[in-house]
Amino acid sequence: MYQTVRGMRDLGPEEMKKRQFFWDKVRKAYESYGFSRLETPAVESFDLLSAKGGGGQEIKKEIYYFKDQGDRELGLRFDMTVPTARYVASDASLAKPFKRYCYGQVWRYDRPQAGRYREFTQCDIDVFGVATPAADFEIFAATVDAFLALGFKKFVIRVNNKKLLAGLMDAVGIKDDKKLDAWRAIDKQDKIGWDGVEEELDKKKVPNPKKIIDLIKGNKITKEMTASEIGAKGKEEMDAFLALAKAAGMEKYVKVDLSLVRGLEYYTGITYEVMAGGKWSCGGGGRYDNLIKLLGGQDTAAVGISYGVDRVIQLMDEAGLFPPLGGTKCFVAAVNDSVRQKAVEIATELRKSGVSAETDLAGKSLGKQFAYCNSKGIPYCVIAGPKELESGEAVLRDMESGNEETVKLGELAGKLK
Amino acid sequence: MYQTVRGMRDLGPEEMKKRQFFWDKVRKAYESYGFSRLETPAVESFDLLSAKGGGGQEIKKEIYYFKDQGDRELGLRFDMTVPTARYVASDASLAKPFKRYCYGQVWRYDRPQAGRYREFTQCDIDVFGVATPAADFEIFAATVDAFLALGFKKFVIRVNNKKLLAGLMDAVGIKDDKKLDAWRAIDKQDKIGWDGVEEELDKKKVPNPKKIIDLIKGNKITKEMTASEIGAKGKEEMDAFLALAKAAGMEKYVKVDLSLVRGLEYYTGITYEVMAGGKWSCGGGGRYDNLIKLLGGQDTAAVGISYGVDRVIQLMDEAGLFPPLGGTKCFVAAVNDSVRQKAVEIATELRKSGVSAETDLAGKSLGKQFAYCNSKGIPYCVIAGPKELESGEAVLRDMESGNEETVKLGELAGKLK
Repeated sequence: MYQTVRGMRDLGPEEMKKRQFFWDKVRKAYESYGFSRLETPAVESFDLLSAKGGGGQEIKKEIYYFKDQGDRELGLRFDMTVPTARYVASDASLAKPFKRYCYGQVWRYDRPQAGRYREFTQCDIDVFGVATPAADFEIFAATVDAFLALGFKKFVIRVNNKKLLAGLMDAVGIKDDKKLDAWRAIDKQDKIGWDGVEEELDKKKVPNPKKIIDLIKGNKITKEMTASEIGAKGKEEMDAFLALAKAAGMEKYVKVDLSLVRGLEYYTGITYEVMAGGKWSCGGGGRYDNLIKLLGGQDTAAVGISYGVDRVIQLMDEAGLFPPLGGTKCFVAAVNDSVRQKAVEIATELRKSGVSAETDLAGKSLGKQFAYCNSKGIPYCVIAGPKELESGEAVLRDMESGNEETVKLGELAGKLK
Repeated sequence: MYQTVRGMRDLGPEEMKKRQFFWDKVRKAYESYGFSRLETPAVESFDLLSAKGGGGQEIKKEIYYFKDQGDRELGLRFDMTVPTARYVASDASLAKPFKRYCYGQVWRYDRPQAGRYREFTQCDIDVFGVATPAADFEIFAATVDAFLALGFKKFVIRVNNKKLLAGLMDAVGIKDDKKLDAWRAIDKQDKIGWDGVEEELDKKKVPNPKKIIDLIKGNKITKEMTASEIGAKGKEEMDAFLALAKAAGMEKYVKVDLSLVRGLEYYTGITYEVMAGGKWSCGGGGRYDNLIKLLGGQDTAAVGISYGVDRVIQLMDEAGLFPPLGGTKCFVAAVNDSVRQKAVEIATELRKSGVSAETDLAGKSLGKQFAYCNSKGIPYCVIAGPKELESGEAVLRDMESGNEETVKLGELAGKLK
């Protein structure tokens, strides 16, 4: 028997209904802000995937890398930011701001674990070409609206700013060559705790470990953090962002968190982490104003949030956020073979009136047609019998209660709507 | 500068709006018949892709084949029928009929040509587990409804039946070992004409070339074709199919065409070819009752139609079937910096009322905000000015006519809806 490839899986009808629900809501939220969808190919050149600013040379072990028959070095995309950045970089005439969202599969050659697959779905929203708190806010706001539309009530987006953290480093007197060590240590806080962070800072000979940790744990933007130019700029950006969040009545969905360190070698300003359904992150992002230029494009600002759809769907499942994701409304059953064609006619008319309808495809008995109805959770059954059809009628059965009534054929659609 | 991989392309915002329109219509049509979506991975084992009944060993040159780091032989799927058949074959407990549709990318290492890409989008609809004309009809009917919903007026689905063609071969006295040669020659009729077919039949020493061609060109189901058991069965299936099409008022979308030969080594009963927008085929399918068993599953009937989305979109473009695919409804412009925050507030309220709204992200002047509006084709602009805001109002401008009126903030959404 043939199997799915290790680390990959089929998404069956029930799972796909959830994804459709998810995507309809998220798409509508993004479009309400004027974002448009972009779709890039699954396959990209390895040159791009391993570019500085992309995955780097070490990415080869983490992706599906291969050569085509023309000996081109290729790979499956591991995210949608790099391909989109290629799109933006390659077209200098693209109107800015370019506001795009996307939804699609990405592939990573990770070790498969519970809930972690080698093919998974991501959803991204980004603004290109504008380096303003207004753009930082819009990415945040569209994400808030998407999560509200999905039904999340308790969720928060943790926010920090790379420039503020740089100001903090300046305040403590950490020089450039130690900053990266410091950030990497702080980034481990979730796993090793603050004591662990202090130990690590000591080991890496980062000066003033206690002071760094106190400032971060204090979670206040202090005067000393904003004494340097970059620190002051970070505060200015954060203040403007928070003012917009307040104006839009969305301040309750922000949590400023100085301990948030996400890929700090990559981000240049605001950073986000989306916390939905408790303490778990399901995605994040930030401002990455250097990427497009690194990929050979013009100097182009960029900010975005990306999240794992599989994770969000799992959180929605756990929180019971999916409404009944209905299927077919009605089954048109034939009492015997003499009325099968008539059942098809009735179902056709129902569909024309916007009522989804199935008929028996297998020549089943009435009892087995009922059983199919029940197994698929179809709530209503129109029973086409020769006697009723003679007077232009059929029996409408509520499959849950078992109640039946005789209805004129012309009135069936109205009843079922 | 980084490029897309040879034979692949990005689908930008305008193209994606068309696809969204396409897919919303098609999905709704399929769901009205009770079909559900299945999604399988992009990557499959080469074992499956090259299985008898799948692509066969010769497929390696036509696909993206590669090994992962665990030395597994893999490939990108070249269609969605084989992966779906794997899904059906591997789960004997799957309730039947299993009615599924799918939509997704497939990859083939073809020579790229105008309008032909190495990554392209397919859309499939299939019924598994039922070998009846009712199932043959449902696949046809759902496709007709999908194309009607897309706006096609003149289109037709060519229909033939493998069993009828077998009856025709029996009538002419062609033995098993010559049947394949005969079918292959007839299949070339579009390209080489009937004279060419006759030559080819002669060359392959198929008996009675003239008679075969006369019967096919006559396009009538004659008594001699239905003299053998298989021919009679073919006629019975075709008659039942046509009766259902007539009952549903869809006979005008069927064209019985005995010259239709689609992958006859694969199909076992009805075959379809979807002709939309003139003489061009944009897809097809048929009954393939042997595939699931060939892939190691239980004996399971199957029938379906698959078409190329890129081709259908192109035909829709040519026929002018796309309505205006609107974007943002309204832009909230700020007259100066003092009211930028207020503009965000107004836009937030509009979105809450279901009106899509953008604001300026770049700190642009009013004139440049208007220019952005026009470049994106946003039809309305709310102009937030300090004076009007003091009395709880803003100016609503129709960007096409240039007409302006002063409107209470609370009444903006109502006006814009």
